[in-house]
Amino acid sequence: MRRVLRMTGRGESTIDALLQPLYRTWAARPIPVRATILAAMGQIELHLSAVHASAGPAGDGVDAAIAEAREVIGRDVFSDDGAALEAVVGRLLTARGWRVSVAESCTGGLVAERITSVPGVSRYFDQSVVTYSNAAKTGWLGISEALLAEHGAVSAPVARAMAAGIRERTGAEAGLGVTGIAGPDGGTPDKPVGTVAIAVALPDGTSSRVLRFLGDRTQIRFQSSQAVLDLLRRSLER
Amino acid sequence: MRRVLRMTGRGESTIDALLQPLYRTWAARPIPVRATILAAMGQIELHLSAVHASAGPAGDGVDAAIAEAREVIGRDVFSDDGAALEAVVGRLLTARGWRVSVAESCTGGLVAERITSVPGVSRYFDQSVVTYSNAAKTGWLGISEALLAEHGAVSAPVARAMAAGIRERTGAEAGLGVTGIAGPDGGTPDKPVGTVAIAVALPDGTSSRVLRFLGDRTQIRFQSSQAVLDLLRRSLER
Repeated sequence: MRRVLRMTGRGESTIDALLQPLYRTWAARPIPVRATILAAMGQIELHLSAVHASAGPAGDGVDAAIAEAREVIGRDVFSDDGAALEAVVGRLLTARGWRVSVAESCTGGLVAERITSVPGVSRYFDQSVVTYSNAAKTGWLGISEALLAEHGAVSAPVARAMAAGIRERTGAEAGLGVTGIAGPDGGTPDKPVGTVAIAVALPDGTSSRVLRFLGDRTQIRFQSSQAVLDLLRRSLER
Repeated sequence: MRRVLRMTGRGESTIDALLQPLYRTWAARPIPVRATILAAMGQIELHLSAVHASAGPAGDGVDAAIAEAREVIGRDVFSDDGAALEAVVGRLLTARGWRVSVAESCTGGLVAERITSVPGVSRYFDQSVVTYSNAAKTGWLGISEALLAEHGAVSAPVARAMAAGIRERTGAEAGLGVTGIAGPDGGTPDKPVGTVAIAVALPDGTSSRVLRFLGDRTQIRFQSSQAVLDLLRRSLER
């Protein structure tokens, strides 16, 4: 018996520290539950397994351990059945009968690509835009040049305007906006490479975050996509 | 000394058969050139290496072998310096001072994501759309419902209209269109899962292909992205 808990939002060391007391409990059980943490970009996996020495798989202990870990980690857990974040988001959208559209800058299509990697996505996704330049943000999304000039393209107000703009333009209930500096060029002292603003616009309001990621262009782009999908997940689970 | 020739467009067995006479020549040289073929989705790599037993790396033999292989394989070779197809396309666009925009359906953003994975892409890319539904194809790209009804969304005429539509909408010199059935659902006897139509619209005309790929959703999407980027490459190298 083996199960995987997937989570995002906190670092590996924080998660590991939170789980330490559980590791000791699990190891002391008659059928010990073994735990392994795997950290990838923007995602942490807790692999739990237990094997009864004489009688083969011992599922109950693993299921109980999954529940205990969920209790400790809380809302950072996004799946306990192997589902990827984009699939979890798809289920939440389907449950509400909502659609999602994306306006992406630095991720260049990655968020839409991840959303549409899930079979059956046409139930909740029909269109998206990549607005890489300022002119594209103005042209496709109606973002004013004044807003871009005042805050810069990589800012919470512009991410919020992108999310609200794509939502309005497409009629989708959920609009996502991502704008950032994926590097290697384009960083400034104020906004170094890895600075990313994300926003989620829903019928009841808009949430946004400005984040700073480490890594190369690929890693910054992936973490940005993970962050905006996770902000959508948390907003839909509320 | 080790170099990699990357190519796309023909199958591994065809490429291997073409290269057989060269393998024998290379193996018989005073400093033998060793060849290994690696086939991945939509791409074949020929790895060539040579080591002089007494005097270390033997670059000249490998460079000569690369030239001989290029001669035999011809235009299917897209790089001999390790560059990915999206980077090669970026160089070709930069050389002409052209921009590219994409209208994607089944690939859901993957083509734009690959194009924008290359640092410095803002020189030749500023915007793109994902038009997954028919309504989105009509709304963003001005594709008529009559055309969609007559040929179906997965057809050369619709791919051509997508490429021409995004080109017209954005003012980019190069417009790409991709529409297909990535599966697992949506296939028909006429157009099974894996059927994909691609098109490249340039100032001097539009090229298109209807292809049929094998594999799962991820593989079909990647091969579709590879095919449209390669059609653009061939059009720009003409």
